[in-house]
Amino acid sequence: MAEPFHCDVNSSLFMGYLGNCMLNAADFHSNERGIGVTYLNTIKKTWVISRLAIELNRMPKSYEDFYLETWTDRILRFFSSRNYAITDNDNNVYGYAKSIWAMINTETRQPVDLLQVRDSIITKYVEADYNCPIDKPSRVIMSDKAKYICTIDTHYSDLDLNGHVNSIRYIDHVLDLFNLDWHRSHTIKRFEIAYVVESHYGDKLNFYSEDIVPGETCIKITKTELNTGKDVEVCRCKLRYINN
Amino acid sequence: MAEPFHCDVNSSLFMGYLGNCMLNAADFHSNERGIGVTYLNTIKKTWVISRLAIELNRMPKSYEDFYLETWTDRILRFFSSRNYAITDNDNNVYGYAKSIWAMINTETRQPVDLLQVRDSIITKYVEADYNCPIDKPSRVIMSDKAKYICTIDTHYSDLDLNGHVNSIRYIDHVLDLFNLDWHRSHTIKRFEIAYVVESHYGDKLNFYSEDIVPGETCIKITKTELNTGKDVEVCRCKLRYINN
Repeated sequence: MAEPFHCDVNSSLFMGYLGNCMLNAADFHSNERGIGVTYLNTIKKTWVISRLAIELNRMPKSYEDFYLETWTDRILRFFSSRNYAITDNDNNVYGYAKSIWAMINTETRQPVDLLQVRDSIITKYVEADYNCPIDKPSRVIMSDKAKYICTIDTHYSDLDLNGHVNSIRYIDHVLDLFNLDWHRSHTIKRFEIAYVVESHYGDKLNFYSEDIVPGETCIKITKTELNTGKDVEVCRCKLRYINN
Repeated sequence: MAEPFHCDVNSSLFMGYLGNCMLNAADFHSNERGIGVTYLNTIKKTWVISRLAIELNRMPKSYEDFYLETWTDRILRFFSSRNYAITDNDNNVYGYAKSIWAMINTETRQPVDLLQVRDSIITKYVEADYNCPIDKPSRVIMSDKAKYICTIDTHYSDLDLNGHVNSIRYIDHVLDLFNLDWHRSHTIKRFEIAYVVESHYGDKLNFYSEDIVPGETCIKITKTELNTGKDVEVCRCKLRYINN
């Protein structure tokens, strides 16, 4: 259920909450198939999310039930594609999501060939024909005209169990760039995010925005590294929205 | 279950997540008894939380199940006392919480006599003998030596469905005042918070800290009001913690 204190000022489930439900679902689904982080940590490997696109007919409202279904529809050597469907009690669709994941070696941070893990066990769980009718996460293209918006510090509450800034937390921070009037008068139809590198506690996050066409805004996040002072791209987002 | 992406860098459930579970439980429990906000909104009344104390033996770790039980143990004319027990599958206790709630008229913001609502129906649901063996939320006493720490803006993600800064969100912000090393080397045993007035989108929140005795820190939050520029106390917290 979209419990009321996980909902926003419009009584809609927070997208960040939904996003963390998706990460949790991926975790359970892969662990139950023997290729989740519980096993991978024993062989010094882990999953990292590379891209995510969430597309919504509408967001669940407070007290509405929702179901989150996930499946893998495609495996390449270095990438796995995971889909999501968000539905209600009557199987009406709230929305879909698509995500791309890579497996890395936790010591070298290098990509791992998925087909080399547990005798390609992952290929047994591919459901290619189960429909997820939204566009794949695309490249988010921005010009050099993106406008600097603000810089924020990273805090304890930004971190996940790995000590990285939680992948979904960027969504919260991006949505916080838009003011309350905007949130009251707009509905987000699609949110996509392409991850470049992880950020850590102490990094400063810098936000740059570019309006592409009416109803579409791209946001680039860079980090100023605590130790080096270097400015490095962390991720890029593209939001598509409508006026209510 | 303490799902992994609701857990912090120590693999412990975020206290803010647990706190919102408590608000949700209070909402369901009171709605099921006909004195929740679903009914109260129809007569222009609502519940507001006045005090909260959470005391923990330990926080649930990632993948651990936890149960949240809530009951009302005392009704005064203008206050209701609600308890919580947090337990595991074997009924071992993670911790307890106590909260104090007032009912207000949503137009006048004045307190409402609980015994005047629905023929004192609330008194039917008092379970005075069910044990909640922790100290009540106390007055948080601070001197004028509290040290100014920082000021933060309020954003969309801070707001609940009523358009106020979510009562639990202050806990997140207070825990973000402590750095990562602190969180890795300390465990919070008790967190209490006394609410004074609500804050809103656009308010600036100012944090002041005072170490009372070793292992105890008080934090006062004030708001600089958007329209008037006035500095008004919002809430006070007291944390008790141990070195790991």
